[in-house]
Formats: sequence, C-alpha cells, structure tokens
Amino acid sequence: MAPDFPVPTAQAVADSLQLLRQRQPLVQCLTNIVVAQWTANVLLAAGAAPAMVDNPHEAGAFAGIAGGVLVNLGTPYDDTTAGMAAAVVSAGAAGTPWVLDPVAAGAAAWRTAVAFSLLESATPRIIRGNASEILALAGGTGGKGVESVDTPEAALQVAQTLALRYGTTVAVSGAVDHVTDGHRVVRIANGHLLMTRVTGVGCALGALMAAFAAVLDDGLLAATAATAVLTVAADAAAAVAQSPGSFAVALLDQLDALSPQSLAANVRLG
Amino acid sequence: MAPDFPVPTAQAVADSLQLLRQRQPLVQCLTNIVVAQWTANVLLAAGAAPAMVDNPHEAGAFAGIAGGVLVNLGTPYDDTTAGMAAAVVSAGAAGTPWVLDPVAAGAAAWRTAVAFSLLESATPRIIRGNASEILALAGGTGGKGVESVDTPEAALQVAQTLALRYGTTVAVSGAVDHVTDGHRVVRIANGHLLMTRVTGVGCALGALMAAFAAVLDDGLLAATAATAVLTVAADAAAAVAQSPGSFAVALLDQLDALSPQSLAANVRLG
Amino acid sequence: MAPDFPVPTAQAVADSLQLLRQRQPLVQCLTNIVVAQWTANVLLAAGAAPAMVDNPHEAGAFAGIAGGVLVNLGTPYDDTTAGMAAAVVSAGAAGTPWVLDPVAAGAAAWRTAVAFSLLESATPRIIRGNASEILALAGGTGGKGVESVDTPEAALQVAQTLALRYGTTVAVSGAVDHVTDGHRVVRIANGHLLMTRVTGVGCALGALMAAFAAVLDDGLLAATAATAVLTVAADAAAAVAQSPGSFAVALLDQLDALSPQSLAANVRLG
Repeated sequence: MAPDFPVPTAQAVADSLQLLRQRQPLVQCLTNIVVAQWTANVLLAAGAAPAMVDNPHEAGAFAGIAGGVLVNLGTPYDDTTAGMAAAVVSAGAAGTPWVLDPVAAGAAAWRTAVAFSLLESATPRIIRGNASEILALAGGTGGKGVESVDTPEAALQVAQTLALRYGTTVAVSGAVDHVTDGHRVVRIANGHLLMTRVTGVGCALGALMAAFAAVLDDGLLAATAATAVLTVAADAAAAVAQSPGSFAVALLDQLDALSPQSLAANVRLG
Repeated sequence: MAPDFPVPTAQAVADSLQLLRQRQPLVQCLTNIVVAQWTANVLLAAGAAPAMVDNPHEAGAFAGIAGGVLVNLGTPYDDTTAGMAAAVVSAGAAGTPWVLDPVAAGAAAWRTAVAFSLLESATPRIIRGNASEILALAGGTGGKGVESVDTPEAALQVAQTLALRYGTTVAVSGAVDHVTDGHRVVRIANGHLLMTRVTGVGCALGALMAAFAAVLDDGLLAATAATAVLTVAADAAAAVAQSPGSFAVALLDQLDALSPQSLAANVRLG
Repeated sequence: MAPDFPVPTAQAVADSLQLLRQRQPLVQCLTNIVVAQWTANVLLAAGAAPAMVDNPHEAGAFAGIAGGVLVNLGTPYDDTTAGMAAAVVSAGAAGTPWVLDPVAAGAAAWRTAVAFSLLESATPRIIRGNASEILALAGGTGGKGVESVDTPEAALQVAQTLALRYGTTVAVSGAVDHVTDGHRVVRIANGHLLMTRVTGVGCALGALMAAFAAVLDDGLLAATAATAVLTVAADAAAAVAQSPGSFAVALLDQLDALSPQSLAANVRLG
C-alpha cells in the first residue's frame, strides 16, 4: 500500500492533528499496569478518547467498535494476553487498525513469542519500539543484538526489512525517531532526553499512533503525526520544566495546548 | 429508608466533610488498573484511608472490617471479579456500605452481567455512573440508549426508577450532577469541563462516595457530600490551573485545602 | 555477615548515591497496581532503571539478570504471586539481592502466608515495612499487635529479632526510620508527614532499597542509603510544596536534583 501515499509533510502532520481533534477517536488500549493511567491522560490531552478494555470476555467485541487498538506487552498476564489475542483477531476481521508495542521483546522470552503469535494473527498498522525490540522482531537476538543496531542507520535497515516482511509501518524510537514502511522513510528530530526519565512516554507514543491510525489510512503518516505531536509537545514542556516530575505534568499541558499551526512550525522532519 | 432523612443542605454537606476528616474511614477499593493510584491519592487528599484489597482470597474478609467498599468495573478480570463478588457478599452480611460504579455498563456485555450479578447479591448504598451507564442498569440498551437520556430530566427519571427498584441512591454525573433515592432529588451545579480531560475523576468520585457512606447513614447525603467535595475542589483547581496535567495536581491540592466552611459557601445545591 | 561491615556514615550514604548513579542498576519490580507507575518514576528520578517483569512465565529468568528485585505484596493475585515465587527462587539461586515489602501483612491473611512462603524460599537482603507489618512477620498478631509496638524502641526490638532470625536487614518506617541487621542499628530522622498523604511513598522506598542493594554488598547500608535519599529529597520537596498533589511532583524533581554532597550535608543519622 505504501507507494500510494505521499511522503508526510509538516502540513500533513498538522492536518492530522486537526482531524484527530475533530474526530476524537475511541482508542482501545490493552496495555500494562505501569502506564495505563498515564496513557489514558496522554490520549485525553491530545484529543482522543481512551478505553482500557483488556479482558478476554470483552476485548474482542470492543475491538470491533473501537477506532483504533493498542496492544502493549509491558506487563502481559495469561488473562490480558488472551484479551490481546481476541482483540487482534477481531481488529483484523473488522478492519480496525491496531498498533503493536512489543515492550522488552528479545529481553523476555515469553512475551516475544506472544508478539510473534499476534503478528501471525493479523497485520498491525504500525509496530513501534526501540532499536532492540525491533531487532528482536526482525529475528535478532535482543539484549545481545542491540549492539549491532547501535547506529541509527543500522536500526533503520532492520526496520525497513521488518516493515516489508509484514507489510506494515515500523517506528523506531531514539534520539532521532525513524518511521518507515519499507519504501518511504521519515526522520523526526524533535524530543528531549527528559522523555527517558519518565516511565511510559514510549508506551504513550504507541497509544497516540493507534489514535492517529483511527483517523488516517496511511500508517506511515499516523506514526509520523503521533511522533511529531509527542516530541514537539515534549520540546515545549522541556522549555518550562527541567525536572522529571514537573516535566511529566507539563507534557500533558503542552499536548493539550499544541495547535496544528505550532506543530507545523516546530516539527523537524527529514 | 429515604423518607427518614432530610434533604441535604450546604451545612449538612460541610458537617459531613468535617466528620470524614475526624473519622478517616478505611475505604476498600476494588477498582481498575487505570485509576488505582489516582483514586488512592484522592481519598488521601480528602482525608480518608484507602486500601486496595481486591483479590478473591482476601477481599471478602476485608470488606467485613472496612468502613466502606468501592466496586468499580473499569477493568474487570476473572480474578478481581471473584474478589468483587466476595467483597459484596461480605459487605452485605456485615452491613458495610458499598458503592457500585458500573463503568461502561451497556457498552461492554460481560461487565454489565457482572454488575447485575453484584446487584442481586447485596444492595449497594449508592450506584454512581453517567447517564448511559445508569440507563444500562435500568434496562436500557447502553450505547444506543444514551440518546434517549440526553436531557438531564430524562436521565433523572431513569435514575429515580433505578433507585426505587433497588432501594438505593443513584448518582448521575453530568454538567449538573443529580443524586436521588427515588424520593428526594439533589442537583449539584459545581465542577468544570477539565474534569473530563483527566482520567479517573468519575472513578475517584465513586471512591469518595464510599468514604462518606462509611461515616453517614444517609446514602443520599453521602453521594451529595462526595460530589460537592470533588466538584467544589475542582472549581478551585480550575481557577489556578487551566491545563489537564496541572489541573490534576491542583485538584489533589485543593481537596486537601478544602475546609468545611469553604465547601458550605461554594457548593451550589438545588 | 553483619559484623563485617561498618556502621553507615553520612559520607558512606553519599558515596552510595554516587555509585547508584554510575551503575544505573536494573531493578525488577514485582509490585502492586496502585504504585507501579509511581515506583518506576521514583527509580528513574533517583538514577536506577526499573523493569516491571512480574508474570510467572518471565519473572524467574529475569531475576537472574536483574541487579536487584523488589517483591511488594500490595495487590497480590494468583498470577503475580506465582511470579513472585519464581523470582525469589531465581534470585536466591543467582545471588541477586531481593527486598520484601510485606504490605498489610497481619491485616490480610493470605498475603501474610505468601510472605512467609517467600521468606522460606530464599533470604531477602532487606525486609521493609511499618511497625505493624514487621510485627506480623515476627510472629505478632498484626492489626491487634500494632498497639504493642507503638513506641519506636519496641518496634526496634521486634525488628532486631526478625533480622537475626532470617539473617537479613529489617527497615521499619516511622516518624524516625529504623534500620537494623540485629547487630547494628541506624536511625534516620529526615522526612515529612506529607509522605503519608501520597500513596506509594513507602512502596517506592522498598524499590529504592532494591536499587541500592544491587550496587552494595551491605544490606544495612543499602536500606540506610535508600531511606536517606528518599527522606532528604522529601524534606526538600516539602520546602517548596505543602500540598499532596504538588508534593508528589516535587518529590520526583528533588530526587533527580539531589547531589551526594547535599545528601551528606542534610541526612540526620543516629
């Protein structure tokens, strides 16, 4: 599908934020106990509507009515993993876009197998992770393998391979974020080191990707817009708060305050 | 029981807050993973003592010693749902007041059945929800049905029917909050739209209702006092913080700072 | 082992913080749903790397590679309790130091049995609790028993007995914190009442103890350094924020800002 969509521009990213605010998509989050509250608050601040429906009795049916679905493997349990499996099958059948965030894939064995099982069940619109997690899904060896992708270019090549294999978009977090569908490549050079001092910022990025995927057909644009929104808001937050506690509060405030115009003016795409 | 209690006044609400601060009731919360921390912090800020005991091995026994019990269906699992069932049976046997917050009842099928099962097991002191959830418990059809209760007066009629059916108090959140036991009706016209931009504000309201029910025999007064405390504090928070991240922080600060005198002066009952 | 280590000094505590920041130890947390986010943020602010791996499929293997392990019984479920059992066995086999925080031991029966079962499985480096919880592990009767340890000296005697029985360090929280390995005793007289108005401050202290245990061989020094860091940061936070919501934010900021020099200058050891 990728060749049919243009390379995302700053204006396209800004328009995407405006669309998100208009539509206020319902985003079903099957995420971990550490970041559930934070993720919901990030979605609310950005303009989306979170719904944390992750039990196996309801997750499947809900994925049929949600606008987008996030599956985050941060704290998988037998119960919620069954919920994830049901949600992904249902999302695949209903055409609901879903995002896979394979937290700690490669470093923890069971969840890595869960991630592969989900990938075989239905194709996600976006896979989001750090270089180590993306390498693990691409067939690398996780903890060890991260050394082999410690240059942004090496990580990008792995991401492109993974994107083409599954016919999806892959987003790799780092000092510069990379997003690719195998054909197109976008670099987003916003964001601040403080984002790594607050738990769940990456997890919330996955949720924002599911929110944008709910209102956009192009997975690459959705991943780019989500990354742009979060990192441009983080730049603004870091300008007013230099410590992790107050930075987290300011990030929610700046997500709420961010206008499409300001986003277009401040995002650094490459 | 309702006719035996007077219609709550601003002074009665203020006296209730003073009583809560004196007694510092132990509130057992069986709630969801999204709002557990926030709920505990709201209870602490208001002056109560939270205890999140929600596993089936302990929930029943603990409901026998807690001052009040909150059952919130935000993220029900088999394990915690068994805990809720045990807590409600025990609360019923021990006379511990309990509050039902049927999050997303009507929109998700399994938890709606869980809610009805709990209601058959023991009568809650208070049922708290938005119009759609209250309609679902009253026999409406949830998601669809919400259109039929989109006027405050229509929602109130449904709430009165539900209250009389179960012999309980029903609280309906909205721009104006309504509380009724079927006979008496209280409207609380405080609060701010920012409350809908932070996850778990409604869930925390349910917990506050359980806290007030622990120190008051009148469920209508307990629901009214909890609503008044949270929404008057929210008014004060919105006066100093206009963005969702800082508003959430300010809401905890204002709950802590709220005096009975200020509550009586600022609550708008009708 | 205790006699081989000196009594902790302010300088040793400051050096420990510097070491923690250099090593950034990986701390596996098997903790409760209420405080998971807060605990991760406290660890990040102090300079450690949290990993919340608590499912039974992965917890054992991860405890073999983690620097330290926290086991907190705040919301135990069958699933996570199996994870705790696996982590403790693995930590014992691998020599990974682990910390037991027996939240509400004595007040809730099942988790008290879980705590004893874990203690039989492998010796923790540190046991951390309030006087009531420590009494329950020492064979007291919990809720009732707390009256019998309501003086700091009585609580200390119980802690010394428990420490000697298991060959571990026991830390008792209170207005003055006490840490003992049965032979040595340290009192830390920092901290502020606001710490009791925010949920999870004690739970986060247990996580900090696991972080320090990951970089120090002496459990008494690890427990002392963790307590000193958290309470000195709390003193600084209380100087800028007198309400619970903003105090919690300031506590994270002050943990990040705390220098070894400031720690040495402000800690009150006795």
